[in-house]
Amino acid sequence: MQSFEIDKTDLLRVETALQGNDADLESVLQEYHASEIALLFERLPQEARERIINILPTDIASEVISEMHEEQDPGELLIGLDPEKRSEIIEELDYDDATDIISQLDEEDQKEVLEDLDQEDAASIRALMLYPEDTAGGLMNSDLVKVNIRLDKKDALDEIIRQSEEMEEFNAIYVVDDDNTLQGVLSIKALLKAKAEAHVSDLVNTDFVFVKADLDQEDVADLISQYNLTAIPVVDGQMKLLGRITVDDIIDVMEEESTEDILKISGVSEDEELSGNWKDAVKSRLPWLVINLGTAYLAASVIRHFDSTVQELPILAAYMTIIAGMGGNAATQALAVTVRRISLNDLTDKQAYNTVIKEFLVGLINGAANGIIVFFIALFYDTDPMLGLVLFLAMTGNLIVAGLTGASIPLVLKRVGIDPAVASSIIITTFTDCAGFLLPLWFGSKLLLDAHHHVLHLH
Amino acid sequence: MQSFEIDKTDLLRVETALQGNDADLESVLQEYHASEIALLFERLPQEARERIINILPTDIASEVISEMHEEQDPGELLIGLDPEKRSEIIEELDYDDATDIISQLDEEDQKEVLEDLDQEDAASIRALMLYPEDTAGGLMNSDLVKVNIRLDKKDALDEIIRQSEEMEEFNAIYVVDDDNTLQGVLSIKALLKAKAEAHVSDLVNTDFVFVKADLDQEDVADLISQYNLTAIPVVDGQMKLLGRITVDDIIDVMEEESTEDILKISGVSEDEELSGNWKDAVKSRLPWLVINLGTAYLAASVIRHFDSTVQELPILAAYMTIIAGMGGNAATQALAVTVRRISLNDLTDKQAYNTVIKEFLVGLINGAANGIIVFFIALFYDTDPMLGLVLFLAMTGNLIVAGLTGASIPLVLKRVGIDPAVASSIIITTFTDCAGFLLPLWFGSKLLLDAHHHVLHLH
Repeated sequence: MQSFEIDKTDLLRVETALQGNDADLESVLQEYHASEIALLFERLPQEARERIINILPTDIASEVISEMHEEQDPGELLIGLDPEKRSEIIEELDYDDATDIISQLDEEDQKEVLEDLDQEDAASIRALMLYPEDTAGGLMNSDLVKVNIRLDKKDALDEIIRQSEEMEEFNAIYVVDDDNTLQGVLSIKALLKAKAEAHVSDLVNTDFVFVKADLDQEDVADLISQYNLTAIPVVDGQMKLLGRITVDDIIDVMEEESTEDILKISGVSEDEELSGNWKDAVKSRLPWLVINLGTAYLAASVIRHFDSTVQELPILAAYMTIIAGMGGNAATQALAVTVRRISLNDLTDKQAYNTVIKEFLVGLINGAANGIIVFFIALFYDTDPMLGLVLFLAMTGNLIVAGLTGASIPLVLKRVGIDPAVASSIIITTFTDCAGFLLPLWFGSKLLLDAHHHVLHLH
Repeated sequence: MQSFEIDKTDLLRVETALQGNDADLESVLQEYHASEIALLFERLPQEARERIINILPTDIASEVISEMHEEQDPGELLIGLDPEKRSEIIEELDYDDATDIISQLDEEDQKEVLEDLDQEDAASIRALMLYPEDTAGGLMNSDLVKVNIRLDKKDALDEIIRQSEEMEEFNAIYVVDDDNTLQGVLSIKALLKAKAEAHVSDLVNTDFVFVKADLDQEDVADLISQYNLTAIPVVDGQMKLLGRITVDDIIDVMEEESTEDILKISGVSEDEELSGNWKDAVKSRLPWLVINLGTAYLAASVIRHFDSTVQELPILAAYMTIIAGMGGNAATQALAVTVRRISLNDLTDKQAYNTVIKEFLVGLINGAANGIIVFFIALFYDTDPMLGLVLFLAMTGNLIVAGLTGASIPLVLKRVGIDPAVASSIIITTFTDCAGFLLPLWFGSKLLLDAHHHVLHLH
C-alpha cells in the first residue's frame, strides 16, 4: 500500500457509500488506512463521522480518533457516541492520546467519560492530566515494556511478550528494580543473543538518556533529535519510571515549534491555529498591528520633522520609501537567518559576535550594491548626481542598520531569556523605517537644499 | 546520564586535557557521549579534532563523525586521518551517513577514500551515491534486517540475530522472497509469540507502507509523520528492497524543510546555510533585494504621480508611510499563516476559498480598527476630520489588499506548481506598498485638495 493523500475520487467514493447501507460502507472503508480515514473526516460532516466510527472495528476506530487533528475536535466526536462504544475506543487508545483528547472536553464531559471507563484506565488518565501538555509528563505514555533487573532470560522474554500484548510495537525495554526505579535499558537483540542462564542484570545498558517529567517539550525534542532516539524514558524526581515518549509525538512537537517560529517572526501570536476562524485571527494579530501603528507614528514623526524639505523636494518623499522598504526587507532576511539559527542551536558568545559582524558586512555590501544602482538611476533619469550621492549614502546606511538590528536584537533577547522570534519583523522594521526616512531626508537637507539654495543665489 | 548541552566547563576540561598526554585525554573523553563530543568539536580547532578522533575507539569515533553537522566538514576531518584509521571509521558508519560525507569531498579525495575501503562497502557506497541527496534513495540506508518468507521461526530468529550483529538496533524486520522482492514486514513481537512450527509466511504483515527510491524527501517525511512510523522500506520500480529510511534521518529533513520555509518567506534563498559566511549570504540575498528595488521603484512611481499633492499636503507624505507599512505587516501575517498551512497540509478548493474569505474579513476588521485609531489621531492632533476620513479609508482599503494578496498569492502559486513560500514578503509587500501610497494620496487629492480649494474660493 502506498498512498500519500486523499483525493477527490476517494472522497466521492466514501460520500456515495455513506448513502448506502452499513455493509457497503464497511467494505469501502476497509480499503483505507486509519490515518486516511482521519484525513477524509476533515471533509465530512459530524453525522457522517459518527456513523463511520460506529461501523469501524474498535481498534481501527481508536486509531482514526488518535490521528484526528486537535482542531477537528475528536473529543466532540467521542461525546456523540454511545457510552459503551466510547469507552471501548478510549481503552484502545494510548494513554497519552486519550489524555490529550479528554483534556479538551469541558469539565462535565470529562467526568462522564472518565466514570464510564475501567477504573485502572481512568486512574492512569487522571494521573497524566496533572502534567502540563507541553512538558515531558504531558507528552509521555504510560504504556511501556519494563522488566525487573533480577529476572533471567526466559522470564524476561515471557514478561516482554506478555506486556507487549496490548501494544502495537515497543521501541525499547526498560529495566527497573523492585521499587520501579529506572536502572537502564535492555536491547531485544542482546536478550535474544544471550545464553539461557544470563540475567537482565548482565545485559542491561546503564548508559542511557532519560528526562524528568517537568522538562519542557522543546528540550525533549532537542534531546531525541540530538541522540537519534526512537523513545526516551520519563522519570520523577526519585528516578521512578513514569512513562516514555516516542519519536512520533516529538515529530508533532517539532512541527508545532517550527510553525510558532514562522508565525511569531511574522507578527502572529503563537496561539493562532493555522486553520482557525477569522475571529481568532483578529485576536491574534490585531495587538501586533496596533503596536506597529505606534512605531509607524514614531517613524512618521521623523518625516514631519522635515516637512519643509519634503515641500521643496517632493522627490525625496518618493525615494525615502524605497530606502525604508529596502531596509525592512534586508532586516527581515537577517532576522530570519538569525532566529532560525538560534532556534536550532544555542550560539556561543563568539558565534553571536561573529553573526553580528557577518550581518554588518552583508548590510554594507548589499547596501553599497543597491546604492550604486539608485545612484545611476538618479544620475541618468533624474540627471542629479548629488541626489544620487544622497540616495547611495542613505541606502548603504540603512542596510547596515538592517543587518545590525536584524542580527543583534534576537541575540540580545535570547541572552535575557526572551523568545528571540518575538523580535518579529514588526519590531525590527521600526528601526529601518526611522533610519530609512531620516537618512535620505537629512542627507538631502544638507547636500541638496544647500546646493539648491546656492543655485538660487546665483540667479 | 542526562546532559542537554556542552557548557564552558566541559570545553575548558577538554581544552586542558588536550594539553596533557593521550591517556589523560582519553579518560576525560570517556565521560562524554559521541554527540556531545561532536558539539565540542564546533569549538575546537581542526588539529584538536584529529587528535581526539585518533584517540577514541573506532566505534565512538565513527559515531562522532556521523553526528557532526555537514557545515563542520566531517569529510575534511577524515581526509586528515591515517588511511587505515579512516577506513576503519568509515566501515563503522551507516552507509547513508558514509555516502553523505564522501559525496561532500572533491572527486580526487572521493576516489582515494573509496579505494582504501573494503570492496563490498565501497560498492554499496558507490551505489548510494547515484541517488540525489534529497530523494528517498539518497536518504536510505542499506543496513537493514530482512528475512526470507520461507524461513521457520527458529531460522528467522537466528537470521535476525546474525544480521543485527553489526547494527545498533533494528526498528523493523523486512520480509522478502528469493528475488529480494519486498513481501511485507515482520513484528519481533509476533515472531517471539509464535509457536515453534510457525513460518515467516504465517506471521508477515502485508499491509505496510513503502516508498520508491526516487520519491522526494519531503513526501517521505509526510508519510512517516502521517503513519507514525519509525522506519520505512525503500524499493525500486520492481519492488526489490533497496534499503530503509529511519525516523532520525527524517527529523533532519523536517528541520531543513522548516528552515527553508522561514528563509524563503523572508526573501532568503533556500541554499543559504544558517552558519554560512558573509559571501554566501550576499549571494543568497542580493538577488531578492534587487528584485525588491525594482518593485520599490514601481511603488515610488505612484508617489511621483502625486508630486503636487505631496507639495501642497506634505503631511500625506508622512501618513502614507504608515498606511503602507501597516499593509506590509498585515500581509506578512496573512502570508505566514497561509504558507505554513499549505506546507503542513494540502488544501481543498473549498478550504482555499474559505482561507481567502477569512483573510479578507480579517483585513477588513483589523483595517477598520486601526483606521478608527488614525481617524481620532487626525481629529484631535491634526484637528482635521477630513484627513481622518482619508486615513480611515486608506487604512481599511490597504489591509483588505494585504489580506487578499497574502492569502491568495501563495494559494495560486501552489496550484500552478510553484513553491508558495516564494510568495515571500518581498513580493507581497509590492502590492501593499503600491496600494498604501495610492490610497491616501488619491483619497487625499479628492477629499482634501478639493476642500482646501473650496476654502480658498470662500476667501
